[in-house]
Amino acid sequence: MAPTGADLVGTTRPASSAPHPDDDRLPARVEETLASYLDRRRADATAIDPAFGEATGALTAFVLGGGKRIRPTFAWWGWRGAGGDPENETAPAVLRAISALELLQACALVHDDLMDASATRRGRPTVHVEFAGRHADAGWHGRPARFGAAAAILLGDLALAWADDMLQGAGLPGAAIGRAAEPWRAMRTEVLGGQYLDVLGQATGDTTPRAALQIDRYKTAAYTVERPLHLGAAIADADPALVSAYRRFGADIGVAFQLRDDLLGVFGDPEVTGKPAGDDLREGKRTLLVALALERAAERGATAAHATLTSAIGDHDLDADSVDRIRDLLLELGAVQAVEQRIAGLTGAALDALSTAEITEPAASRLAELAVTATRRRS
Amino acid sequence: MAPTGADLVGTTRPASSAPHPDDDRLPARVEETLASYLDRRRADATAIDPAFGEATGALTAFVLGGGKRIRPTFAWWGWRGAGGDPENETAPAVLRAISALELLQACALVHDDLMDASATRRGRPTVHVEFAGRHADAGWHGRPARFGAAAAILLGDLALAWADDMLQGAGLPGAAIGRAAEPWRAMRTEVLGGQYLDVLGQATGDTTPRAALQIDRYKTAAYTVERPLHLGAAIADADPALVSAYRRFGADIGVAFQLRDDLLGVFGDPEVTGKPAGDDLREGKRTLLVALALERAAERGATAAHATLTSAIGDHDLDADSVDRIRDLLLELGAVQAVEQRIAGLTGAALDALSTAEITEPAASRLAELAVTATRRRS
Repeated sequence: MAPTGADLVGTTRPASSAPHPDDDRLPARVEETLASYLDRRRADATAIDPAFGEATGALTAFVLGGGKRIRPTFAWWGWRGAGGDPENETAPAVLRAISALELLQACALVHDDLMDASATRRGRPTVHVEFAGRHADAGWHGRPARFGAAAAILLGDLALAWADDMLQGAGLPGAAIGRAAEPWRAMRTEVLGGQYLDVLGQATGDTTPRAALQIDRYKTAAYTVERPLHLGAAIADADPALVSAYRRFGADIGVAFQLRDDLLGVFGDPEVTGKPAGDDLREGKRTLLVALALERAAERGATAAHATLTSAIGDHDLDADSVDRIRDLLLELGAVQAVEQRIAGLTGAALDALSTAEITEPAASRLAELAVTATRRRS
Repeated sequence: MAPTGADLVGTTRPASSAPHPDDDRLPARVEETLASYLDRRRADATAIDPAFGEATGALTAFVLGGGKRIRPTFAWWGWRGAGGDPENETAPAVLRAISALELLQACALVHDDLMDASATRRGRPTVHVEFAGRHADAGWHGRPARFGAAAAILLGDLALAWADDMLQGAGLPGAAIGRAAEPWRAMRTEVLGGQYLDVLGQATGDTTPRAALQIDRYKTAAYTVERPLHLGAAIADADPALVSAYRRFGADIGVAFQLRDDLLGVFGDPEVTGKPAGDDLREGKRTLLVALALERAAERGATAAHATLTSAIGDHDLDADSVDRIRDLLLELGAVQAVEQRIAGLTGAALDALSTAEITEPAASRLAELAVTATRRRS
């Protein structure tokens, strides 16, 4: 079948193209796009029943209430780097398609907060806590927590269904939607797999570096960088060499991003990160940082250090002095240095992967910048 | 744009066509299709990690472990009635597309069982109970119930994501996938809306007939009959008059189906229904049957009857004598008769709607048969 206009999808494939105003205001453009989409879907929900419309308003508030829009940003640069042109008439459809990533993320966060029994996110009550509060305030029948859990399950499901609807209905040509299917399909299974392995590892007490890295790979890297880039590239009909380079870049930078997050979770400045110091320790996150420290303590026969670490991880009452002691241990055992080295190595490998592909500017430069800022950030 | 081969989608639009072997073995064909699809997706999951592959095996067992395949059956007849030809080369793609409805249903059931804290379904442990059991048997860390809940949330999410993947990847021509978007989008929002209204009504104690009927409309009718028919019709590129007739038929038969279910839940023979007598009362289902009885008791000033009903609904320890007493009350108050009349009226209206449209045989006859058997069934 001869190619048709439907296959163009806004690409022109120059070696470089002028920066576009949307490049720098992408988070705001994604938020406008989401606001407009969610407004229409809320009308659908209100037509079913005003009470359901009102409940979906909580989902809208959650989606629009914060976030760095990092996944659409990587998808945007994936598309731009494959020749995607923001001035092309299909660009608004591309923006809608990549904004759908934020609805996936809303499902992941709402369900994750429920599974972790987290009370707050971004300084606001989590969805299950908010709906439990509505129940308690109104003095309704049954247990507030059970109502809150049900609302969070259903609104998370709705976000997942709407994510698919938003992608499918973005207005992309059929061929582009068809190409988007592979990264979209893989990403959702990978993030759910990563979450399941995380929950399972917490249950089995698997504290090996291998387990930590595998969760980082699927729960963070594939979902946050690799597949969003792949999605943008697929929409632009990128050649396989570019997709492959993007994926190697994304897998490495995604893990490096998570490792930086792990370090900030223990050593970050609460004034900058917005999280109490040591909260990752109290929550019992099984990070590579902790896994390496435990492994090294075992190798050195440092039984006391191993025991101190083991009992601190997941201790909700860990005080500031104990957090300091754990920090010292992580440093002494060389775990911090090992993680820093790994971040540096992954960032280098990612930048190498980027340089092997022909990426339309300014995307190549901007992806390299993102790689560095994401792995050197302080919050 | 001139129509292309991609728009044919297996339709020939004769007034009638020969019955096809798949017409009578549809549930088995749907199960084969699901087994093959889930097998491939399990391989994807195993590639992420064998433990995740193993967890998705529980989802496969759930999907293949029973069910009447009623949603794909209505979608099939919706397609057949719009001229869909099982001998056409696109028929296998249609079968895959409509089988995806069973994955949506798996998400709905797995999450519903968790929200309702149900221990068994189809005589087997529910997913959250099964995973809690694995946790307890292995003596893992943390609370088994929390692990079970997380597994059920994630596997339900996976079923929802895979449902979309299965529809999008069914191999339908692009135009047919585009037409399927409207019923698919509406159905998922409607069922989640119906479930939310159900949970909300239980919390607020809304026992009005209006509330019961609204939940029946969205949680059952739209999701079970109306939108599956719409989906099949959309794939076949049915004309708007046929879609409209299908939807009216589906909305009425779907509610009638639920009302029959409500009667069986209180008056059904446990030997036939497979559920203990009166379990719907113990579970506190707020059915139209109960809503009408409460309304009539209030209208008649039958305070004692109203109080007896109110205290029995949701009483987990309700004994057999009390169930008998509630049955007598429902009969005396005329609620049973009113529900039977409504079922008859809805069935009549549905058959009228069916007769207004040109539906290719044998679909018209088979839909009429389904309408009657679904609303007169004993289990």
